[in-house]
This record gives sequence, structure tokens and C-alpha cells, in this order.
Amino acid sequence: MDKEKIKCTISYDGSGFSGFQIQPRKRTVHGELERALKKMHKGEPIRIQASGRTDTGVHAVEQVIHFTSPFQLPEGNWKKALNTLLPNDLYIHRVEKVAMSFHARYDALAKEYRYFVLNKKEVDVFQQNYVYQFPYTLDIERIQKACSHFEGTHDFTTFSSAKSTIKGKKIRTLHKVQCIEEGEHIVFIFHGDGFLYHMVRIITGVLLDIGQGRLDPDVIPLLFEKRDRQKVGATIPSQGLYLWKVLYP
Amino acid sequence: MDKEKIKCTISYDGSGFSGFQIQPRKRTVHGELERALKKMHKGEPIRIQASGRTDTGVHAVEQVIHFTSPFQLPEGNWKKALNTLLPNDLYIHRVEKVAMSFHARYDALAKEYRYFVLNKKEVDVFQQNYVYQFPYTLDIERIQKACSHFEGTHDFTTFSSAKSTIKGKKIRTLHKVQCIEEGEHIVFIFHGDGFLYHMVRIITGVLLDIGQGRLDPDVIPLLFEKRDRQKVGATIPSQGLYLWKVLYP
Repeated sequence: MDKEKIKCTISYDGSGFSGFQIQPRKRTVHGELERALKKMHKGEPIRIQASGRTDTGVHAVEQVIHFTSPFQLPEGNWKKALNTLLPNDLYIHRVEKVAMSFHARYDALAKEYRYFVLNKKEVDVFQQNYVYQFPYTLDIERIQKACSHFEGTHDFTTFSSAKSTIKGKKIRTLHKVQCIEEGEHIVFIFHGDGFLYHMVRIITGVLLDIGQGRLDPDVIPLLFEKRDRQKVGATIPSQGLYLWKVLYP
Repeated sequence: MDKEKIKCTISYDGSGFSGFQIQPRKRTVHGELERALKKMHKGEPIRIQASGRTDTGVHAVEQVIHFTSPFQLPEGNWKKALNTLLPNDLYIHRVEKVAMSFHARYDALAKEYRYFVLNKKEVDVFQQNYVYQFPYTLDIERIQKACSHFEGTHDFTTFSSAKSTIKGKKIRTLHKVQCIEEGEHIVFIFHGDGFLYHMVRIITGVLLDIGQGRLDPDVIPLLFEKRDRQKVGATIPSQGLYLWKVLYP
């Protein structure tokens, strides 16, 4: 029987998951997806592949996964059947049948991450899992000036976790780094060809330091040269981070 | 030593609480508040009184509580100390020293509740705990027409839980019942002198039936007369409901 390759665009609220990657006795996005697929395939295990992982507490507006199945179903039926089996904090927005050569991870051209800061003095209990609540005054123009220093191709060793087990150079290209004010929210947009472990959370933390006047925007080129994670501040919380979009050819 | 009476305006995300009222081995708003106060008073139990209870999953934007304390602290210090001891999903916005005669429940003149419906076909995973996601088409003008039938003084037996243990008549006055469209959200506003058990969730459910064309707005006066909970539909979910404001003289 011919198999079909299925691409799904999914979103999840990261608050209730121990991240994406499957782990024994932990509730993960990967685990919930394979549990639903196994049920649908009457006990037959179906392996999924994602565009990449997300950490505990990190959200996804448009994450992409793929799997192959012996089933021949219209796309709408896939969507309906899977969403019925999935929990409320994980939802499949789009199902597409794709070429057997498609791979959610290897075919991804670029990704967009967004980081949301709620910049106000009073705590908003309803946003605790969805933004980083930052009560101090920020100079947005100063942050915007600093953003451009991160655009382009750089060695991001200073701005990624030292614990990363990645092999090879930590060189990545950011096509766009933006900071936008939306009412009480400050949104940081990162569009790039690849992201290192904790990279968005570390860079956003540095941009907040700059916005507070604790760091000069023009020191960034020097920080790139240092290639030392210790030269910049702590990794800011995961709950403000969203995998926003994955781009394919 | 003179005691002082403290009034607090608090907000909480109801998602993580088994309602307001204290219960053994359950995480409740009342329980968390008294735990923080006990800690602050070095083990001495401090009893709180609220304007009223809220059910499991119901949120509060401005709930009001009071307590008495032997401490003499500026209002700002109370706020800071208590918020430090409280969990992230419970926050004290305002602390006021009030007359010893003040009572959060008996002095309340009126309350406002709001119910939030997200009216779109696609599920939004980020709003699952904060709105009632309702995918069907609604005729908002029809709902707005029906709202006025609920305003005024009525016997709300049909529109409140039959399980209620309340004694006496179920007569209440609603000063304002409104339905407003805010983008993809439909907001129901109820302002009244008192609310019966499940009253807002039952009335909003009836208004959604009317908006779907399943019920005629002009049948409401007849439903009031029946005084029978069985004549109307199910109680809709708690996660869309917010205690919005409590009014005092």
C-alpha cells in the first residue's frame, strides 16, 4: 500500500508541556502528537519529525511537523480526526499532503521567533505564562538602534548557551531583528536561517539591558568578538518566547 | 494594641485554583491568601472575608477582601509584603485602610461580571483557559435585543442553578445587561445588586442560543414566569467568566 507524507502546521500553549522533545514520564508536545497518531493508527506507532525543538514553557504559533502514514484521507479529515484526539493546548491548524522527499527540519529555510515583554509596573495575572513581565522603564529607540547590530552573519557564541552540545561553528544569519511597541507590550522579532540554544532569550535580555541604559548599543560588535557567554546577562524566562513561523521553499 | 482593618482589591487567574472558598487539600484563592497572611503574622492565623465566592476556573479582575491585623503598616508596605508571599496567579492591586465597620460582603452595593466568548472557527490554544471558544455564527443584534429582557428586577429561578441552597426568594435586580463585539471576542456585561449560583453562565448560554436563532428573544418574559431551571439550556463553561468589579458606597 502506498504511504502518504503529511505536513501539519500546529500551535501549542507551552505552559503545560515539558518542552517539545519526547521524554519518559513527562508531558511533551512530541509525546502527545505520537500518542494521538498511534491511537488513530490502531496501535501502530507513527514517528513524527518537527522543524526543531522548543524548550519547556516556550509557545508555538506555527510549528511544523511531518509524518508518513498508510492512510489515504482527505486533508480536512486528518485535521478533524487528529484535533479530536489531541488535548486542548495543542491544535492542528493546517494539514497538507506533501512530496515524500519533504522534511520538516532539513527543508526549513528560515524561522521567525517572537519574544513578548509586558512593560508595566502592575502585575497582570492573566499573562504570567504568556509574556515576560518587566516593570522597569525602557528606552525603545535605544533598543531599536541596537537591533541592527544583531542583523547579518555573525558568530553567536557570546549570545547562546555555553551548554550547547552543537558541533562546529556557531555562525548564523539573522535577516531581521526588530523591536515594536504594541500598547503595553514590547515585541522582539527575530528572523533568521537558524537559531542556537537560548539565543533569542539571551539576545532579548541584552536588548532589555540596553533599553534600561545598563549597556551601550555600540558595545555589541565587541561582544560578538569575545565569543564568551559569560560577557552578557542571564537567559530571560521562556514564557515570553514564541516560535512564530517556519519558512519552506 | 489597636487593630487595623485592611481592604484589598485583588485579581486572580482562576485556571489554577479550585475556586475561591477554602477546602482541605485543594488550592484555593482563600487558602493562598490566608497562607500568606499567616506567614506575614509569624504563624498567627488571620481570617479573610471576600465580597463573595467564585467557582473553579472563574477569574477575578477586581475581587475585594478584608481582614483585620494588629500590624501598623503603610498601605504600600502591605501591598509589597503580601505580593512577595503570594503565588504568581494571585495579585494584590490595591490596599486601603478602612473603617473597622467595613465588610467586603455586606457593604457591597453592586457587582459587575463579564463573560468572554471567542467567536471564531479555529481554536486558539492560548485562550483556552480565558474565554469560551464558540465556533458558530451569532446574530449580535438579536442578542442585544434580548439583553434588555434581563434588565430590571426579576425572579431568576429559571436562570440559576437548581442545586442552590439559598433560602428565600431568588429575586435580584440587574441594572445593566450588555453585549459588545470587540474584534473576535463577544463580551457580555452584567451589572447587578446580586447574583445567584451559575446565574451569569446560564443567562449567557441562553443569549448564545438566541444569537444562534435557536430561541426567540421574546420568550424570555415567559421563561421568567416558569421559574424552572429545566426550561433553559446547560450552564456554559467557567473559564469565560470574570468577576470584574465590586462596588461600595
